[in-house]
Amino acid sequence: MPRLTDEERAEMLPALEGWALVEGRDAIHKTFVFGDFNEAFGWMTRVAIAAEKRNHHPEWSNTYRRVEVTLTTHAAKGLTRNDVELAQDMDRFAAGMSQRR
Amino acid sequence: MPRLTDEERAEMLPALEGWALVEGRDAIHKTFVFGDFNEAFGWMTRVAIAAEKRNHHPEWSNTYRRVEVTLTTHAAKGLTRNDVELAQDMDRFAAGMSQRR
Repeated sequence: MPRLTDEERAEMLPALEGWALVEGRDAIHKTFVFGDFNEAFGWMTRVAIAAEKRNHHPEWSNTYRRVEVTLTTHAAKGLTRNDVELAQDMDRFAAGMSQRR
Repeated sequence: MPRLTDEERAEMLPALEGWALVEGRDAIHKTFVFGDFNEAFGWMTRVAIAAEKRNHHPEWSNTYRRVEVTLTTHAAKGLTRNDVELAQDMDRFAAGMSQRR
């Protein structure tokens, strides 16, 4: 899985809502805030299953209803289509939940 | 739920295996390393259910098979029995899994 080309970056990254490039790393970050811990961890569980199926896993931290996510592809030392697709999974699973932001 | 007394700290904290006080916060920390993501997230799921039942939640981050945990009681501004008991749950759930450390 190669790193995204400049053309792919220009097309794919702006299409990801709420995701921002991480300073000093070729990675993207987003903060998800849910209604409570039950929602946050329920979402994490859906993501975990999708991540395992893709064999591509997030770096993430959780405190109560907040989840901070960083995506990058260690083997490629930067962003690949796997990161874009996992980000899309995460956004799709969060849609319709009572996120505060 | 009051903060632990000095006597309780002296008795309870050394009995927690692998947990260390966090510098600059009245909190405890432990790193759990499992065999793979499936084990790590399976363990997190058991902990999440226990945490929700206790209405006492961890600060934790996960990268693949590693989970970093910090426990403290925000309402008490420090360590309480809830933290000790959640730490004990975490250790009990991890026992018998293929942890590397």
